[in-house]
Amino acid sequence: MKKEQHHSTWDYLESIGVPDLPGRTSPFDPGYDPITLESHLDQSAHLISTLKISMACWQVANEVSTRKKLAAARIRNVPTCTGGGPFEVAVHFGKLPQYLDLCADLGIDRIEAGEGFIDLELKPGEVVRMAEERGLEVQFEVGKKHAGTFTADMVGELIDQGMRWLDAGAKEIVVEARESAEDVGLFGDKGQFNAAAADRFAQAYGMDIAIFEAPNKPSQFALLNHFGPSVKLSNVRIEELLRVEIYRRGLHSDAFQHENLRPKGPVK
Amino acid sequence: MKKEQHHSTWDYLESIGVPDLPGRTSPFDPGYDPITLESHLDQSAHLISTLKISMACWQVANEVSTRKKLAAARIRNVPTCTGGGPFEVAVHFGKLPQYLDLCADLGIDRIEAGEGFIDLELKPGEVVRMAEERGLEVQFEVGKKHAGTFTADMVGELIDQGMRWLDAGAKEIVVEARESAEDVGLFGDKGQFNAAAADRFAQAYGMDIAIFEAPNKPSQFALLNHFGPSVKLSNVRIEELLRVEIYRRGLHSDAFQHENLRPKGPVK
Amino acid sequence: MKKEQHHSTWDYLESIGVPDLPGRTSPFDPGYDPITLESHLDQSAHLISTLKISMACWQVANEVSTRKKLAAARIRNVPTCTGGGPFEVAVHFGKLPQYLDLCADLGIDRIEAGEGFIDLELKPGEVVRMAEERGLEVQFEVGKKHAGTFTADMVGELIDQGMRWLDAGAKEIVVEARESAEDVGLFGDKGQFNAAAADRFAQAYGMDIAIFEAPNKPSQFALLNHFGPSVKLSNVRIEELLRVEIYRRGLHSDAFQHENLRPKGPVK
Repeated sequence: MKKEQHHSTWDYLESIGVPDLPGRTSPFDPGYDPITLESHLDQSAHLISTLKISMACWQVANEVSTRKKLAAARIRNVPTCTGGGPFEVAVHFGKLPQYLDLCADLGIDRIEAGEGFIDLELKPGEVVRMAEERGLEVQFEVGKKHAGTFTADMVGELIDQGMRWLDAGAKEIVVEARESAEDVGLFGDKGQFNAAAADRFAQAYGMDIAIFEAPNKPSQFALLNHFGPSVKLSNVRIEELLRVEIYRRGLHSDAFQHENLRPKGPVK
Repeated sequence: MKKEQHHSTWDYLESIGVPDLPGRTSPFDPGYDPITLESHLDQSAHLISTLKISMACWQVANEVSTRKKLAAARIRNVPTCTGGGPFEVAVHFGKLPQYLDLCADLGIDRIEAGEGFIDLELKPGEVVRMAEERGLEVQFEVGKKHAGTFTADMVGELIDQGMRWLDAGAKEIVVEARESAEDVGLFGDKGQFNAAAADRFAQAYGMDIAIFEAPNKPSQFALLNHFGPSVKLSNVRIEELLRVEIYRRGLHSDAFQHENLRPKGPVK
Repeated sequence: MKKEQHHSTWDYLESIGVPDLPGRTSPFDPGYDPITLESHLDQSAHLISTLKISMACWQVANEVSTRKKLAAARIRNVPTCTGGGPFEVAVHFGKLPQYLDLCADLGIDRIEAGEGFIDLELKPGEVVRMAEERGLEVQFEVGKKHAGTFTADMVGELIDQGMRWLDAGAKEIVVEARESAEDVGLFGDKGQFNAAAADRFAQAYGMDIAIFEAPNKPSQFALLNHFGPSVKLSNVRIEELLRVEIYRRGLHSDAFQHENLRPKGPVK
């Protein structure tokens, strides 16, 4: 006879006022093994917006392993997205159709486009159309990988650029922070967070469309402190996902100090 | 027919004078996937004193995954302990009984109590009694998460506080070092180790009761260099556990330089 | 009926001129769990020259776990090699024959010899002969763990020492960089890469015999930038192996800037 379980974690969290949030974080896979990844998905699928299969790692891995990862995500209803690097390499060599064919064949749901290290001569509408013909969505990443911290002028240009992609059918806009969140995008050379620039992206696109790369603890905490639990984050290492999600819900000791994150407490 | 194995690792270690130590390290799980954790337990259960299910991560994970982890520990006779954060959140919201019910239901063996970021108005005896009624042990963590490095006066007060918890029935006392071992507890702003303060805790409680958080390589090596192989450590990442345990046994190239750690060599 | 897969990753990479390189990286296992390690081997065996079972971690782990790891490598045709630390400890205690017996019994293919923290009185020929009698290959590591960055004089002496080992039958020579690549071997106190010294090793031994330890991103990228895709690397964490291998093939956004790494593009 099955032992009855009287107490569930979720009931407990509800009793202290922790909100039931949808997945707002896109963790990335920079080269985990398939079994570890699948077990993480078992543990955390409900906390994930999109799983990013990062960089070109999946291209040099054993293709069977890559297909296993993508299948593991699919059966748990976790959408998958490639990183911007392989897109740019494909464009550079004039092989975008072949790249998109490959992504579609592997069962990827979305590709990321960007101009991180190349200049893109294709128009947003062309890229989106080519992707959609193959059943793929597009998200666009604003920011250069090697151009340092955003200036105020750059922010304005990048916002306009993102708008053109949204108008062309892109689903979300990602703000670049690489793996370091230092001397890139919204982050200064010591990782200082430029809240004013972040606000401009958030206001331009709205909190459902803007995604902020937050690859390490300081950038994750800075973005959650500033925007509160609704901010969309990406480039979170999957073994750090739960830490980000307890911070988002005010259950981390540092988050508990912040009025906008701390659980509201029991309903009186 | 089974092939006979002539050589065993343990016989070899015994031949060079490596002592057969009981588990003195409490690794923590800050959000690993269940399969990785279980495979680590296969590899290292004999080296573990208690497995710490860290922070509130287990509260936002899929509860099935959390229960799998706890079951994996139980069948290998590895006791489990929660971190202090969820205890403090529960106390803050007046939900300690519900929190303890949940921990007991999940099959956790021990909870950690502390005043890392709240002030606790409950008396030690009350907390211990409530836990024991549910079959749970208690360990207490001394130190504040946000108060920096210990001063000499603080050490005296913390020792007294820990003593009150031991008198009330707590099993062990943990000395806070967070995830950084910098600017917290026994560690200065560059991670310098305060050996004199560590000695005061060790003398007050004894080496079987005092547990030192040692979340990174410098803090792990400093504590083992100072106290030798018998020191109890916690907050060790489980993928770094074997490195700590070879250091403890003098088999790491850096530990080999230390008289108190180096294996004694073959018996003459 | 099996669905036909029209697009393969490898065909795509070939179409943009990515070379089909043999495994030139020796990742190390500093204490992963066996299931994670095996799943990494599924994903990346084709990218691995030798799997290094690092430090003495395998000696304190559950021996069943160690044997599982070695079997997982063997059935995928990945050769295994121990680290230099346990060799030196064995020599210090006069237990080299017993150590070699143990390695052979476990099914290890190769041992690393060195004088990282002891002075070796055995001649290279003696060590190689003892290993070969047990079916083991030998590689030799040049450099001291605690002597800091190489001087020009040291490089000359180390090259001569490595030559004596090669003459005695050692298969490859490893240049020490520990886990930090700072203030050790080819790397200065801030990790600056000494390209002139690296060239001397490469010229003395050739690119098939010289292996450079590259334990972190700056050292990996510096060595690949300097030598191009053929350089042999070791001490790469296995979860970072794919990142190293996309860098080696010019598919990483930083590598794409380098003429000697960037894929050659489609054949005209």
